[in-house]
Amino acid sequence: MYIEKINKPNDIKKISKNHLYDLADEIREFLIESISETGGHLGANLGTVELTMALHLVLDLPEDKIIWDVGHQSYTHKILTGRREGFATLRKYGGMAGFPKTCESECDAFNTGHSSTSISAGLGMAMARTMKGENNTIVSVIGDGALTGGMAYEALNNAGKANTKLIIVLNDNNMSISENVGGVSMYLNNLRTKEGYLDLKEGVKDTLSKVPKGADMINKIQKAKSSIKSFVIPGMFFEEMGLTYLGPVDGHDINAMVRAFNEAKRCKTPVIVHVITKKGKGFLPAEKHPARFHGAEPFDIETGLPKNKKMSPDYTDVFSTVMCKMGERDPKCVAITAAMPDGTGLKRFKSMYPDRFFDVGIAEEHAVTFAAGMAMGGYKPVVCVYSSFLQRAYDQLIHDVCIQNLHVVFCIDRAGLVGSDGETHQGIFDLSYLSSIPNMCVMAPKNKWELSDMIKFALNYDGPIAIRYPRGRAYDGLQEFRAPIEFAQGEWIFRESGICLIAVGSMVKTAVEVRDRLKEMGKNVSIMNARFVNPIDEEMIKEISVTHPHIVTLEENVLSGGFSERVGAFLLRDGHFCKHTSIAIPDTYVEHGNVDLLKKEIGIDCDSIVEKILKEGEGLS
Amino acid sequence: MYIEKINKPNDIKKISKNHLYDLADEIREFLIESISETGGHLGANLGTVELTMALHLVLDLPEDKIIWDVGHQSYTHKILTGRREGFATLRKYGGMAGFPKTCESECDAFNTGHSSTSISAGLGMAMARTMKGENNTIVSVIGDGALTGGMAYEALNNAGKANTKLIIVLNDNNMSISENVGGVSMYLNNLRTKEGYLDLKEGVKDTLSKVPKGADMINKIQKAKSSIKSFVIPGMFFEEMGLTYLGPVDGHDINAMVRAFNEAKRCKTPVIVHVITKKGKGFLPAEKHPARFHGAEPFDIETGLPKNKKMSPDYTDVFSTVMCKMGERDPKCVAITAAMPDGTGLKRFKSMYPDRFFDVGIAEEHAVTFAAGMAMGGYKPVVCVYSSFLQRAYDQLIHDVCIQNLHVVFCIDRAGLVGSDGETHQGIFDLSYLSSIPNMCVMAPKNKWELSDMIKFALNYDGPIAIRYPRGRAYDGLQEFRAPIEFAQGEWIFRESGICLIAVGSMVKTAVEVRDRLKEMGKNVSIMNARFVNPIDEEMIKEISVTHPHIVTLEENVLSGGFSERVGAFLLRDGHFCKHTSIAIPDTYVEHGNVDLLKKEIGIDCDSIVEKILKEGEGLS
Repeated sequence: MYIEKINKPNDIKKISKNHLYDLADEIREFLIESISETGGHLGANLGTVELTMALHLVLDLPEDKIIWDVGHQSYTHKILTGRREGFATLRKYGGMAGFPKTCESECDAFNTGHSSTSISAGLGMAMARTMKGENNTIVSVIGDGALTGGMAYEALNNAGKANTKLIIVLNDNNMSISENVGGVSMYLNNLRTKEGYLDLKEGVKDTLSKVPKGADMINKIQKAKSSIKSFVIPGMFFEEMGLTYLGPVDGHDINAMVRAFNEAKRCKTPVIVHVITKKGKGFLPAEKHPARFHGAEPFDIETGLPKNKKMSPDYTDVFSTVMCKMGERDPKCVAITAAMPDGTGLKRFKSMYPDRFFDVGIAEEHAVTFAAGMAMGGYKPVVCVYSSFLQRAYDQLIHDVCIQNLHVVFCIDRAGLVGSDGETHQGIFDLSYLSSIPNMCVMAPKNKWELSDMIKFALNYDGPIAIRYPRGRAYDGLQEFRAPIEFAQGEWIFRESGICLIAVGSMVKTAVEVRDRLKEMGKNVSIMNARFVNPIDEEMIKEISVTHPHIVTLEENVLSGGFSERVGAFLLRDGHFCKHTSIAIPDTYVEHGNVDLLKKEIGIDCDSIVEKILKEGEGLS
Repeated sequence: MYIEKINKPNDIKKISKNHLYDLADEIREFLIESISETGGHLGANLGTVELTMALHLVLDLPEDKIIWDVGHQSYTHKILTGRREGFATLRKYGGMAGFPKTCESECDAFNTGHSSTSISAGLGMAMARTMKGENNTIVSVIGDGALTGGMAYEALNNAGKANTKLIIVLNDNNMSISENVGGVSMYLNNLRTKEGYLDLKEGVKDTLSKVPKGADMINKIQKAKSSIKSFVIPGMFFEEMGLTYLGPVDGHDINAMVRAFNEAKRCKTPVIVHVITKKGKGFLPAEKHPARFHGAEPFDIETGLPKNKKMSPDYTDVFSTVMCKMGERDPKCVAITAAMPDGTGLKRFKSMYPDRFFDVGIAEEHAVTFAAGMAMGGYKPVVCVYSSFLQRAYDQLIHDVCIQNLHVVFCIDRAGLVGSDGETHQGIFDLSYLSSIPNMCVMAPKNKWELSDMIKFALNYDGPIAIRYPRGRAYDGLQEFRAPIEFAQGEWIFRESGICLIAVGSMVKTAVEVRDRLKEMGKNVSIMNARFVNPIDEEMIKEISVTHPHIVTLEENVLSGGFSERVGAFLLRDGHFCKHTSIAIPDTYVEHGNVDLLKKEIGIDCDSIVEKILKEGEGLS
């Protein structure tokens, strides 16, 4: 086994050329077996085995630096830097991360997770390197999907004039998670498929040199540099921005890539190497169903089917169903996603109402302002997005939607802890950043029926409104509590005295568990379902402060700027002095791992909450 | 006077062709006179007189829609839609806004203020228009400076494949506020200056058609569509994204633009019309000093010099001076701006340390991640940015800087109320959005010496750290209070009992005024200078709650998620029951106008604060 010879950085260089493809096969086999057990990002990693090998053959790690855009394609890189054994604990609490982490290896040069950051980071590192008078190589590896993100373009625009060495590897598989969109994607597709391209160039030259005055013409053409360049060089789009373009290169041909990367190393200014890869390469189910094998649950290698059948719907499924109904009911209802038709559950809406479905690519900023434009034009846009990705559009929420008080609905999936993707993907800031925005109404449902009711409420509302709900199984308890949604009004679940748990969204379920435990101890416990985080239900909270000496707020969001601080500050400001216990995510970043384990670790699981309430409530009635 | 015949939309169409340039002259004269009195954006408006006239000649307002990117170039549009008289109150409280406002005129199609939003908004509106089966024309007018912003590119990428009519007018003056940067700017420059371009195209065709087999070659070339297009068409960069490109057109030639816009109207898919204009056109001082006349104070028309001499330095000046010192002291100190070398005061640093100065264009996202890259490479980047523009990089602050706990210094100018620019530019959210980010240290100085001390502290810190300071004159009182800055520690200014004013940054000065008034009434009043907003000085606040029955927090930030809520929530959570009065900006958008007037209006001026404190403090001590 060649893979067993790879135990530290640069070990790959000891493998003889003849056996590199054997190693590639072994890596693929290892990845498929390993991820079939643990789950993880399969497709992207199968696509970049040879690309990563070629980079490691050309570079010296850790002196040279690779910045992996998004970072979920860094598995082969982890193997080649001696972390093969880490795959047993991949994305598990305390185990190896699914993304590059500087704290995990000195060969991980920069943490990533969100899209389109690698060129900016790489350019900054390259500039620092040059200023220090050093000469190591810095490589940003970015997918064509990530290239639809505006910040990648901002970085390319700067790289185009930067007087420093930087290699940008464009890993082009014609996919983001789902199929790619937009003009640039179309353009790349042209580059990819233009077989006769180089022929033409030679053809033209040949013809010209043979005809009378042909030499004159060649001169004339060459004088007009810009036009001749786009005539003879593919990648004019990049060249026009001032970057050197090399390619396209077959991303599964190690020798070809090694040649290209070595050539790129010789360039004194930023160069883009266009590499064509196939997502899921070498595993038929992943080649055929790239979206399903993007971030895969454990699966059966024979059939490619998930090992654990989903028994009950998750919130995404509920959203998906309700959106289709809304689409039927209201012809003005349109849906917008930033490259996540599968993940957000909009695929069904897309197939039913293709004309009212918009996938704008990995471009959250554009998505939000585009929605504002549609709202201005009389439509009811529903922007479906993950909590941590909406961070990208904070300014557009303020500037384009909320100042104009436009009716845009935000359905925010993956809000709260998401688990195995870790720090970058935890949706634990949305209650804070959304609630800081005037005019923005913010809601969170306690269970699947309430999500449905809230979507209907939001579509009938008039103004910016957000619903945040967590990843995973939709809670189907508390079905009997289904009072109509009223603006800025909470809902009583249990009404006693003593302790009142005021819970947001997913934490209502936890509050019920906590109450059961406290009841066993003979405590009186009320539960209020907050429903609204902005504005908070001041009347109800005031009333609670009168009837309950101990208020406990529960949310799956950081403490800072979240529901707890809003309630606490309101109580004090309004002169209601009662004991207030805050159950929230501490103001820190939460790593990857099983959500239940993470909750325990940060103290928002049932046990920890009960303990904290008892401790802080000591001496009260 | 032709300008007097313009009193409502479309009146321009009644002016005979022969007199259009007379009207243009009158508009310029009116703008220069008017803005010399009120102040305002002069350069951009002088550059777009004919461009706006041509649009108004071709369009029917308000059925057709114009979205002005950034929006400060909409003055001629305001004149042509019957708002000439509004210029007397331009940017004054209750008067006409300096930006398009849908609430001001039905001819203002979409509010703008920040850069690079117009194509997204226009595409949304165009899509809505097409879906409704209507056929009006929608135009986004965007400068080449705004084109360096990533979201403009996200929008172009989507427009490139959109099956809807949209006219994008690229107003190309080779400037943002200061000179433009980056590869695309270079590319546009090539387009602009390539006089012989079309000749070449014809020349090649001619030559080919005359030589043997030339016809064959033309065929061959034409079959290879993509390459031939870039050979014969300028604007291939845009064509490659799927957009139709028209131009370049002289932006001061009304007829030429009318022809181009009419041609663009016939396109069934998005088209970009490249218009070349001169910023400041027709007023020599503005042509020569574009940055100075970007947003101008009232000036003398003869000399072009400001009417009111600046008597004392503003915070930007202080920052500017200290940065130069820091640059000298620490060779690792580098400065980054997003197209604001003048506004942020970095111009001097740039001239002293050109190799350590980076202007990345209007690209806040890239700026922040580029800084993260430089920090990773061992440098100490100082990102200098306006508060409301940093909203663009909220995700990058979290994802690229703070998760990795990198030492990047943010010097945040224009924090708090900015005055005449209004809603979009008020820097009233930064304390909220920055404090929600784990690891981000947030400070605000009380006076000019403290700004200097904080910059030094920040450069010696290790981790992400932000200093926010307001627009305008630097407070030079309280010079005697200059205790060394200690992490997360506030500073006593006056220490008595009774009422304690805990003030953030600019509000320390106000607190002193408030204290003087309360002292006259015989009250005991302490003042604590908060210094740190994240983390707050919990020890000191606890101590205050013991010795003072009434705590008043003062900040120039919205209530929601700001300093007040952090302090209030902490006090209640920690069991310190005292009266808490919050002085903050209400959770709303604050329009344009004189800052002192605005403060009165929203209740954060000395009078309102004294009144509120007395009212809420009734019955205490």
